[in-house]
Amino acid sequence: MSINRNELLQARYGRQSTPENIIWNEQIEALISHRSVRSFLDEPLPDGALETIVAAAQSASTSSNLHQWSVVAISDPTMKAELARLTHSASMRGGGYDFVSEAPTILLWVADMSRNHDLVTSKGAVPEVVEYVDAFLMASLDAALAGQNGLVAAEAIGLGGVYLGSLRNHSQELADLIGLPAYAYVVFGMAVGKPDPHRPAALRPRPAQSVVLHHEKYQPQPSHEWVEEYEEVFKDFRAEYGLRDKTWADAVVVGTGLPYMDGRENLRQTLQERGYQLR
Amino acid sequence: MSINRNELLQARYGRQSTPENIIWNEQIEALISHRSVRSFLDEPLPDGALETIVAAAQSASTSSNLHQWSVVAISDPTMKAELARLTHSASMRGGGYDFVSEAPTILLWVADMSRNHDLVTSKGAVPEVVEYVDAFLMASLDAALAGQNGLVAAEAIGLGGVYLGSLRNHSQELADLIGLPAYAYVVFGMAVGKPDPHRPAALRPRPAQSVVLHHEKYQPQPSHEWVEEYEEVFKDFRAEYGLRDKTWADAVVVGTGLPYMDGRENLRQTLQERGYQLR
Repeated sequence: MSINRNELLQARYGRQSTPENIIWNEQIEALISHRSVRSFLDEPLPDGALETIVAAAQSASTSSNLHQWSVVAISDPTMKAELARLTHSASMRGGGYDFVSEAPTILLWVADMSRNHDLVTSKGAVPEVVEYVDAFLMASLDAALAGQNGLVAAEAIGLGGVYLGSLRNHSQELADLIGLPAYAYVVFGMAVGKPDPHRPAALRPRPAQSVVLHHEKYQPQPSHEWVEEYEEVFKDFRAEYGLRDKTWADAVVVGTGLPYMDGRENLRQTLQERGYQLR
Repeated sequence: MSINRNELLQARYGRQSTPENIIWNEQIEALISHRSVRSFLDEPLPDGALETIVAAAQSASTSSNLHQWSVVAISDPTMKAELARLTHSASMRGGGYDFVSEAPTILLWVADMSRNHDLVTSKGAVPEVVEYVDAFLMASLDAALAGQNGLVAAEAIGLGGVYLGSLRNHSQELADLIGLPAYAYVVFGMAVGKPDPHRPAALRPRPAQSVVLHHEKYQPQPSHEWVEEYEEVFKDFRAEYGLRDKTWADAVVVGTGLPYMDGRENLRQTLQERGYQLR
């Protein structure tokens, strides 16, 4: 760890109010140090890395002990090039996704009700829940908890990674590419590899804790109060890393507009074709 | 840590094939040691625990840097009793949810597009994405990554916890109880506290890695092959903890049937009333 604990909180919260009573230890330091890594060394994953990531992922909670997720590890260059193509976006924000083909491995985290669907129907029963949005959510959350544990584990063994929500841009094509059965879809991808020390990733600032943490009841805060504070920190961050000056509010306006969806507006259709009726 | 690393993998995979090349360190050990804690000491959370959990949660990735989640910490006994009531299920599997009122704190992890909705509309723009199932998923995943980091952090500072998907059973009532604005809903709850050493939690077995991990393409496996292996491990586990003998397959049949949903079949209606059109 190259920065100390105070600097870590400083990077995370900037000039905003910073929690003063953090219970520090190495694990907490590691969690707060997370940064999304998009620049990797040209090396395959070390022996045992994938098994370590999967063991951690499997150790996360799974809703009702149903184990409704899978992960597909893609390391083949041709397959990675296909994935890079599928993350291509019309808006091509941030200069594209070349790192998808450069990363040694892309993990595809799958919400997977296909196994249980087979099992239940083989017993002559009907997995009725699959019709409902809650079941779609349950399997998606299983994949998310597994994926997050997987990323924490990857970081714990010296690797880095980044989530790829853009792999939902063309979700049906992706499902076809990897041969997904019905009742399964890729919730997100994750590029994983050894971080390139010459192109270090940035630790991005977050809003103050008071913005996300509520006690007993939800207390809405007018956006003009907290956004102004966060904009300062956002601006400092972009200046430090030589990024083009823009406000966070502008990024949110763009990020919640239809053109930004890049195909993800068709997710419902894909899900329905794959067996999730989202009732 | 009272058990060694081999015993840990043994507990996780039992007689199934066990990965032999795990890259061990303390963080990996901690992740693989996860167990869902439902028995707590009657003590409030230590000073700084909540801030530590939230700092870790905020350090997780957030889709497109949109920060679309919140957490509501419930410690008031009357509020906890209300939450326990809302987790009540017709089927009342596993003897009910008394631990919801016994835990010192229940964290409600919220998919929260309300802040950005306010911000964007205040700029005279329209957050069009909110209409789509992908945006609902994005906010839900933000909450899940935050929540999982929060739980890992809680465990790192000597606490324990358990996810409460049952808090979606009556999602509209819960939203009313905590005063959630539109474009927000509780994805799941999480009971957190100091584990009662006299009622230790069990580390539950998972299927073999080969069941969830695929390489380059998804390779469907007939359920009769892997389920048989997992059933043995599931049986061993239930015998060790003196649990009623039942098969995992039977649990899956029950868990994917409509009666098990306990109100969660109405989630779509709640979501639509709260502004998520799920198009």
